[in-house]
Amino acid sequence: MDQQFSLPAYQDIVAAAKRLKWVIRTTPLIESVVASTACDARVFLKAETLQHTGSFKFRGAYNLIYQLSAEQRAKGVVAYSSGNHAQAVAKVASLSDIKATIVMPKDAPQIKIEATQKFGAQTVLYDRYSESREDIAATIVAETEATLVPPYDHPHTIAGQGTVGLEIVEQLTALDCIPDAVLVPCSGGGLISGVATAIKHHFPDTQIYSVEPEGFDDTARSLASGERETADLEATSICDALLVPTPGHLTFAINKQLLSGGYKVTDTMVQKAMAFAFLQEKLVVEPGGAVALAVLLNGQDEFIDKTVVAVVSGGNVDPAIFGAAIT
Amino acid sequence: MDQQFSLPAYQDIVAAAKRLKWVIRTTPLIESVVASTACDARVFLKAETLQHTGSFKFRGAYNLIYQLSAEQRAKGVVAYSSGNHAQAVAKVASLSDIKATIVMPKDAPQIKIEATQKFGAQTVLYDRYSESREDIAATIVAETEATLVPPYDHPHTIAGQGTVGLEIVEQLTALDCIPDAVLVPCSGGGLISGVATAIKHHFPDTQIYSVEPEGFDDTARSLASGERETADLEATSICDALLVPTPGHLTFAINKQLLSGGYKVTDTMVQKAMAFAFLQEKLVVEPGGAVALAVLLNGQDEFIDKTVVAVVSGGNVDPAIFGAAIT
Repeated sequence: MDQQFSLPAYQDIVAAAKRLKWVIRTTPLIESVVASTACDARVFLKAETLQHTGSFKFRGAYNLIYQLSAEQRAKGVVAYSSGNHAQAVAKVASLSDIKATIVMPKDAPQIKIEATQKFGAQTVLYDRYSESREDIAATIVAETEATLVPPYDHPHTIAGQGTVGLEIVEQLTALDCIPDAVLVPCSGGGLISGVATAIKHHFPDTQIYSVEPEGFDDTARSLASGERETADLEATSICDALLVPTPGHLTFAINKQLLSGGYKVTDTMVQKAMAFAFLQEKLVVEPGGAVALAVLLNGQDEFIDKTVVAVVSGGNVDPAIFGAAIT
Repeated sequence: MDQQFSLPAYQDIVAAAKRLKWVIRTTPLIESVVASTACDARVFLKAETLQHTGSFKFRGAYNLIYQLSAEQRAKGVVAYSSGNHAQAVAKVASLSDIKATIVMPKDAPQIKIEATQKFGAQTVLYDRYSESREDIAATIVAETEATLVPPYDHPHTIAGQGTVGLEIVEQLTALDCIPDAVLVPCSGGGLISGVATAIKHHFPDTQIYSVEPEGFDDTARSLASGERETADLEATSICDALLVPTPGHLTFAINKQLLSGGYKVTDTMVQKAMAFAFLQEKLVVEPGGAVALAVLLNGQDEFIDKTVVAVVSGGNVDPAIFGAAIT
């Protein structure tokens, strides 16, 4: 299915930004004085935790669903997601009374399952070790003629997420500042491919890096090999939002052109970053949202004296997981 | 000492805003969709948790210290505070290599004591049940000729905190919106007197309400009686930032003119508001910072169909206290 689409261009992100203007929150770009001191760098955090539904996913879901025809909307939408995309699709659908069915893993964080249901979506829970979410969604689509809202591998999704990058450009330009590097959490690659498209258009010399959990660094390895690689299928991670095992077709086609490489982080590094964000910046960050900050706090020499943006992509975390990370 | 000052006027807040423009963060005014639905109102949260040092106190401390003479600065500054003012004075002093001595209660949250020391201030810990912080500070001032930076009862402090109100006015005006009510956490009254001065100048019909912990509702009772009343001296509260037992002279002189009344909240209501801010808005809020939101979430009928701003004033909370509130 993915192959029928052409890659989204910079202008698609500008169009998405217009579509989203009165709906999304412009999230703050926070210059973290403490992180800057710790890293001997100038560190900005793009706090997408403060976006509607607690993550950047609202942008892509809105941009796609609001380009559906009236007939398509009447038949509803279907999505599969470990949680953040689920909530985003459910919320966007609820804004226009569109019926939404969301296929979610049984072991997704309770907070994400409940939020999705609260927005009025029907949830279909599956076992991620024995069932295919794509197959379940395809069956629903076949039965209902609902439209599938892909979590990352669609030009409208990528363009929507790219508005995060456009905001970073505007916010840094207001400070007369060009970043040396932008670090972005990466799973299927929708966020980083959109962000890279926006940022490289304005700042061609800025380096964009993916950040993934250890074992799920398929994008980093794909960038190195030039082919779409697969994650370690036995790996586990606390980053429930970053467990997609292979880069998307569209997203990787963009990322292999625009990214400079990828980092990977351990669960311990992620928890340390969550605690830092809590203590120093008063931000609630979920594990998958903290990976880019985790790279910086791990003392990477290559960012000394540089201006670096870490995208903090989501804040939907169960209280017990959060409590364990901060204490 | 307080009596020698005249009340700060609206123009003093405008002057403070100019002084602070390149130093403070303009904190987001977040329209909380979930709180609005829960309250059947339009609810905005002014997230001063995201201010430097994690609370609004940075504004007032900066506005005062940057009006000291070179001679005064050379002799250093002294402050007494349960924590947020302490950190703010320590941080502002560190920006210009001014020596800071901070008198703090021994049982202040560890996170606040450590942050104050990390900014390079000397801390003097005292027993809040047997010693007077004012006396300890006065002794230091007598010995060192350092300048006392009062936590609330000074026109420069009030004008600095008033910039929170000015931002609220600008942010709501951009939305073509006039609030019916603004709820502000209150202890000595510096924040609310400044905010009220700014907001009433632009929106004379907006009602401003103080919010205090149960037992420490001396401002609410003072507003009712017209005289400065004292808190219940046996009371306890998790709101460590809101334990000043009597309204200030200057602050009460302003508040009795501009405020419409006061609310009080229990510890349980405060914890519920902290959990709400964590789950729904991904904000880290300390107990004292959550009291205004706690009033709204308690289902006050008088705010139905109204536009209400709750100032969320600080986020400096020990991990264990936070963990207990959210789980």
